[in-house]
Amino acid sequence: MRWTASLLAMLASSPAAASPESWVEANRSALLVEYVNLLAIPNVASDTPNIRRNAEHISAMMQRRGLSPRLLESEDGKSPPLVYGEWLVPGAERTLILYAHYDGQPVTAEDWTVTKPFEPLLLSARHDKGGKPLSVWITEREVDPNWRIYGRSASDDKAGVMAILAAVDALKAEGKRPAFNLKILFEGEEEAGSPNLAALLRRHKTTLASDGWVIIDGPAHQSGPPQLALGVRGDVNAEVTVYGPSRPLHSGHYGNWAPNPAMMLAELLASMKDETGRVTIAGWYDDVVPLTEAERRAIGEVPVADEALKTDLALGSTEGGGARLTELIHLPSLNINGMRSADVGANSRNVIPATATAALDLRLVLGNTPDRQVEKLVRHIRAQGYEVFDRDPTAEERQRFARVARVTPTPGYPAERTSIDHPLARDVAAALRKHGAIVLLPTMGGSLPLYLIRQELGVPNVSVALWNHDNNQHAEDENIRLANLWNGIAAIAAVMTMK
Amino acid sequence: MRWTASLLAMLASSPAAASPESWVEANRSALLVEYVNLLAIPNVASDTPNIRRNAEHISAMMQRRGLSPRLLESEDGKSPPLVYGEWLVPGAERTLILYAHYDGQPVTAEDWTVTKPFEPLLLSARHDKGGKPLSVWITEREVDPNWRIYGRSASDDKAGVMAILAAVDALKAEGKRPAFNLKILFEGEEEAGSPNLAALLRRHKTTLASDGWVIIDGPAHQSGPPQLALGVRGDVNAEVTVYGPSRPLHSGHYGNWAPNPAMMLAELLASMKDETGRVTIAGWYDDVVPLTEAERRAIGEVPVADEALKTDLALGSTEGGGARLTELIHLPSLNINGMRSADVGANSRNVIPATATAALDLRLVLGNTPDRQVEKLVRHIRAQGYEVFDRDPTAEERQRFARVARVTPTPGYPAERTSIDHPLARDVAAALRKHGAIVLLPTMGGSLPLYLIRQELGVPNVSVALWNHDNNQHAEDENIRLANLWNGIAAIAAVMTMK
Repeated sequence: MRWTASLLAMLASSPAAASPESWVEANRSALLVEYVNLLAIPNVASDTPNIRRNAEHISAMMQRRGLSPRLLESEDGKSPPLVYGEWLVPGAERTLILYAHYDGQPVTAEDWTVTKPFEPLLLSARHDKGGKPLSVWITEREVDPNWRIYGRSASDDKAGVMAILAAVDALKAEGKRPAFNLKILFEGEEEAGSPNLAALLRRHKTTLASDGWVIIDGPAHQSGPPQLALGVRGDVNAEVTVYGPSRPLHSGHYGNWAPNPAMMLAELLASMKDETGRVTIAGWYDDVVPLTEAERRAIGEVPVADEALKTDLALGSTEGGGARLTELIHLPSLNINGMRSADVGANSRNVIPATATAALDLRLVLGNTPDRQVEKLVRHIRAQGYEVFDRDPTAEERQRFARVARVTPTPGYPAERTSIDHPLARDVAAALRKHGAIVLLPTMGGSLPLYLIRQELGVPNVSVALWNHDNNQHAEDENIRLANLWNGIAAIAAVMTMK
Repeated sequence: MRWTASLLAMLASSPAAASPESWVEANRSALLVEYVNLLAIPNVASDTPNIRRNAEHISAMMQRRGLSPRLLESEDGKSPPLVYGEWLVPGAERTLILYAHYDGQPVTAEDWTVTKPFEPLLLSARHDKGGKPLSVWITEREVDPNWRIYGRSASDDKAGVMAILAAVDALKAEGKRPAFNLKILFEGEEEAGSPNLAALLRRHKTTLASDGWVIIDGPAHQSGPPQLALGVRGDVNAEVTVYGPSRPLHSGHYGNWAPNPAMMLAELLASMKDETGRVTIAGWYDDVVPLTEAERRAIGEVPVADEALKTDLALGSTEGGGARLTELIHLPSLNINGMRSADVGANSRNVIPATATAALDLRLVLGNTPDRQVEKLVRHIRAQGYEVFDRDPTAEERQRFARVARVTPTPGYPAERTSIDHPLARDVAAALRKHGAIVLLPTMGGSLPLYLIRQELGVPNVSVALWNHDNNQHAEDENIRLANLWNGIAAIAAVMTMK
């Protein structure tokens, strides 16, 4: 906020540009300052006051660009609003929505090593490869495209917000306008699973009328090029807690007589996968819709970056029995997001813990539903001898059954996929290819509630993923490489002007 | 500290008493105040300034009782000192040491539900059975023996410190003196594994000359009576960390291609026990010294409280394939003290974590050594396909091996056992039995570095365990039931006067 005055002065003095690339070149410093100010506003979806500050801040950014912004509110006015803007073009034959989300994943501040999650910092390189902090007060000619901005949502997905608005700037500076009626939509609770998106789309159906959506979210391919994904995986989370003694016990006096819930959880989790990482839960892969021949061919054409990625990630092995990453993300997954029982390290004590918990993440593909996938999980846990509750069991229930578990799923949502032959897919692919190679993915590994767009508005969507793959999204030390931001702006400008 | 003046006035005005029991009856209120003041001093062994405050505070408590206290320091003067006092009896034929420890287990303050760990609080009953907070400013007649004091070390083991000093008070009030030269010794880093005890015993060998030790530590039997334990299990901790990607990854884009360390840890831990809880690590039970016939008979006479305990702990099953608790604590154990990978609950994120860690606790019996038991563990982890390091592996090492683990053991110590026929065992048993039934255990489940007493000083020891079994020692909400403290004082006075 403290930079706004000088920022406006810089924006006002932007020279006219002959291309989005030259506009970026001439305005990088002002862009950095505007972006850092946006990242400094905490944006965890559950942090209601700050989420609203984000919405109002972004609305002001749109206002300065003449995009007639409005906050599209939920019925009770309490949910994070959709931030909406538009650039209508007289005579345009179609209307497209460009989407990004302005909320970010929750943060564990003490895990961040480079800076605090909401104190964005510019580094001269990746932090674990010798990057050093830099001032944002840099002159135009000093900006190096390999620099990185660190902070929550630097990539996921305030980069989408910033790049869409900068692409509007670039078009205006060139004296151009979009090839269609452009509607811009930023969501504020995507990382919380978009619990209100369906209702919001229904409520604002007329405002949001369009022929299709282009989603700006996600990482470029590990080998460098942008990815155009025609689908996303669905997602449902389930927390599993198993129970030991009703209070933590001295591990000398009661070990090993009292069952240890950490060991019970280890055995339960270990029963869910074989040694290649294939899920052994009955029926896990049964309802998957098979890939078409064209989709299988597209997957085969995706560059293989697996070995380089293994080196970057210091991995000595991978799951999937030799299958490639791109093949594996077209399957439903079961991932342990986190696991906890009592404490380790300096706070560890000699106890038999009272409970042990694992946070599971189940990614879904076309054919799966969240409810069915969770039901398979619950059936599997029952088959291991557990009585399963959807709440904390009572002391009486804990004593009645030899093994007791609690499973609490989130609502979740299914996968979505647009046909490889749909005009929206073909046009966006063609626009992006003017700038170089792209990677075309039938489905990307990540999840967005894109099924809602078809369900509520009856239109298809595609996703453009532009940010550096090593961006630590969803974790500590999230960052964006400037070159990806610059190229992303140009790519989005190309989509906006596609015929 | 703020109550010291009034406390001294109360102590000075103590009426003469005819028995330890009547002395306790007449002085309960002053005792409570003195004890609460002691519990209010934080006592985690690594907290050097506060550990010294404890030592000086206890030394002053001894000084008031005429016990000629001294702090027995380590060579560099930096370790928690032994607090030593004595009551020498002209003409006594033997010298015994009464031992307790004044440090406590580490605390996770946010897990405590009743009070902060070092803000002791008096409750009218157990906190999960309707107990309500009470003021310590109560009159003599109001003290109910079912009340409980909550706070770190309320049972383990400042109760030992307080009860030994109160037993001295009781004897003096009766005009009695011990039946032997009484030496009193309080250790300040027992819960940290007594890393300096051997050196301290060597350095102060002459001061600590005796015919045997009586240890005051640990819980009474679950059925109520005090326990006389002739041995303790040894103990060694080992932290096991397994490694996934070098940074946390988005669980959508990389799951399940990148190996998940939480799942790897689950599989590794699950491989260490069978479904009855028996450790499946090769040779785990091989070097155990078999129990003698007399020891087996004593174990057979221990009251069976297993069913009542299962109800109290809300347990629907136990480990050991039907064996009783008392039998099981005579075996070496493998317990998971804690387990952690990324986060669960509100801070959980959709990531493949970078590491997963389990804190293991290996209890040892006669015949085991810490080094051999850890070596069996490491061999087992290697047999599961892991390259094992004693430090964080480098990125190059993580990539070279399919599975990489770090195992970092504490030094640990072996078990110790005194013969059931030794005069010290027989005399202490006889003294305690004057007050009612006792439970005689060849070995108790907990651990103390008692092997050092024989190794460094050449004398035997026995342990008297007096505190309520449901005291949450080593965990949050640690507490002591007043009746156990009162009876414990009388029991210790009986030991002090045994012929």
